[in-house]
Amino acid sequence: MRESEPMTLDAKIPATIVWHNDQLKILDQRRLPGAVSYLEVTDLDAAWQAINTLAVRGAPAIGITAAYALVVAMRNTPDQRSVAQFLEDLNAAGTYLKTARPTAVNLAWAVDRVIAAASCEPSYVRIKSEAETIHAEDRRICRAIGEAGRGLITPHCRILTHCNAGSLAVSELGTATAPLYLNHAANVPFKVYVGETRPLLQGARLTAWELSQAGIDVTLICDSMAASLMAAGQIDLVIVGTDRVTGNGDVVNKIGTLNLAVLCHHFEVPFYVACPVSSYDPATPSGAEVVIEERDSSEILGDQAADVPVFNPAFDITPAALVSGIITDRGIARAPLADSLAELFQSGEG
Amino acid sequence: MRESEPMTLDAKIPATIVWHNDQLKILDQRRLPGAVSYLEVTDLDAAWQAINTLAVRGAPAIGITAAYALVVAMRNTPDQRSVAQFLEDLNAAGTYLKTARPTAVNLAWAVDRVIAAASCEPSYVRIKSEAETIHAEDRRICRAIGEAGRGLITPHCRILTHCNAGSLAVSELGTATAPLYLNHAANVPFKVYVGETRPLLQGARLTAWELSQAGIDVTLICDSMAASLMAAGQIDLVIVGTDRVTGNGDVVNKIGTLNLAVLCHHFEVPFYVACPVSSYDPATPSGAEVVIEERDSSEILGDQAADVPVFNPAFDITPAALVSGIITDRGIARAPLADSLAELFQSGEG
Repeated sequence: MRESEPMTLDAKIPATIVWHNDQLKILDQRRLPGAVSYLEVTDLDAAWQAINTLAVRGAPAIGITAAYALVVAMRNTPDQRSVAQFLEDLNAAGTYLKTARPTAVNLAWAVDRVIAAASCEPSYVRIKSEAETIHAEDRRICRAIGEAGRGLITPHCRILTHCNAGSLAVSELGTATAPLYLNHAANVPFKVYVGETRPLLQGARLTAWELSQAGIDVTLICDSMAASLMAAGQIDLVIVGTDRVTGNGDVVNKIGTLNLAVLCHHFEVPFYVACPVSSYDPATPSGAEVVIEERDSSEILGDQAADVPVFNPAFDITPAALVSGIITDRGIARAPLADSLAELFQSGEG
Repeated sequence: MRESEPMTLDAKIPATIVWHNDQLKILDQRRLPGAVSYLEVTDLDAAWQAINTLAVRGAPAIGITAAYALVVAMRNTPDQRSVAQFLEDLNAAGTYLKTARPTAVNLAWAVDRVIAAASCEPSYVRIKSEAETIHAEDRRICRAIGEAGRGLITPHCRILTHCNAGSLAVSELGTATAPLYLNHAANVPFKVYVGETRPLLQGARLTAWELSQAGIDVTLICDSMAASLMAAGQIDLVIVGTDRVTGNGDVVNKIGTLNLAVLCHHFEVPFYVACPVSSYDPATPSGAEVVIEERDSSEILGDQAADVPVFNPAFDITPAALVSGIITDRGIARAPLADSLAELFQSGEG
């Protein structure tokens, strides 16, 4: 860790989640890049809506928001209740929040972590402290992912990324973008291609925006153009984030990720996934057990399409065999991923 | 050929190109599916604009439009000129028209064919007759492609297509869609997935629209979702059109085609290309010699994207090795494609 390294990022990219004086505000990412505006999350329903409608998105950011949302929910209920009532209310709030985005494992992970903290010490102060710890850990984990992955980026390297696993998805450095930000801060020259990421265009709206705000050389493409670039030898490395890595190393991530992994396999381009500890889900053996959220047809149809049936899965599953490595905050896991991930994440605990 | 087979298509899908009383009208495909409206093409500039701005698109439709546009151009100039002047004016008009879309070989092919006809008989009547012949041949060729490819579609088959190589791109049955329309007319049940085809959404706006108008079971997806469907074993066959097939069997087609071909190779799904004789270009040895048109960044950026540099190639090149077969109006060419194509197209001439 080089904590002293200059990081100009904070000054240029607005914070995704702001927790100040026990008030929660989140950057409304649906309005980017046109407008930088914040939503005040004053109760549990507002948090549920914000997560469900993608005002806040990105697995780690959803987890942090959910943790703070539980604090907000408990702040809003009478303080003179019994311990049993406190835990019951907190559990009910957590159960409800988890329904906002079923695929992101961080949501359940953060909720369960706050509830576990309350089971030791059922108090507002304790759950608030737990949420703040989750947020602080996230910053530290992003930086550690950046350190683990920074060596993958060589001078004049051309990197492709997909969706947004950037600062906006997490906090500070992002996950997939952390190696980019650290190299950029160290004046290593490189070029980033960003897939626009249909249907919701997180790549076009968020990643292209935050990277260019930070002064990184970025070019936007449609998702279907990656094959052309790879065929022309113009992509040296793909790095994406993940919503969940299962025990065997299968990667659940934004729809279009599997597409890139197959292309990388065909064109012999390294395919890396940045995964914080909170997205590692060893309890789920493989991607086959993951239920993929299907979203509304209106996300695809818009004004421009014929009014026909639509298939709109939000995520896809990339089999471990197509993954060159998983960049974690504890180093890079490599094949066989199941063993390598278990070793990295277990060795770092305790 | 089963000319007596009921074809209800005409009644449901508006004609792409209307030539009546020496007047040329083209369906403005930029406004579909919202509005069905026609542009009157009254001079050469209007034709150039219509082709360049994609009011008319699809390689065969561009060729037919260009042929009629030359007729319109010569109609508008004084008739009392010399033979030399007639040929000079026609040549100048043709040279200018060819600059409207450099990649579509049909444009140059149709222009050259009208000029060749005029060199035998330099008259308005002769070039008009040649343009009408090109149009009539196109209808016949589409039907022949449909007959050649109809056996690829088995009952309950799930087909994926990309962009629009349909009725709107050509005339009547389309090219990639011709096997679909013939099977649908024969009451064979099947399902079609259409990739929306970013950035201009020809799949979402045109193919999904024309197939659903004809009563075919169609589902729209984003281009990046094909991998998920194939991984789940839900695609049995991919059929796309082409703007140009080079001598060695490389396929120049809408951006995103190479992406599908690589996926098909990985997931062992047959990948077929429908190619009329006018899109076969044996004079160009391979895709490496084809200059790919790059289009304006505004096609990708829109309201939703950050204002960053864009890479926007209109086409990609699928190597012959990834192609299962090329469905022509003279049968299906198979590996080695160079020989198979040469044999099919030569045997049918004369």
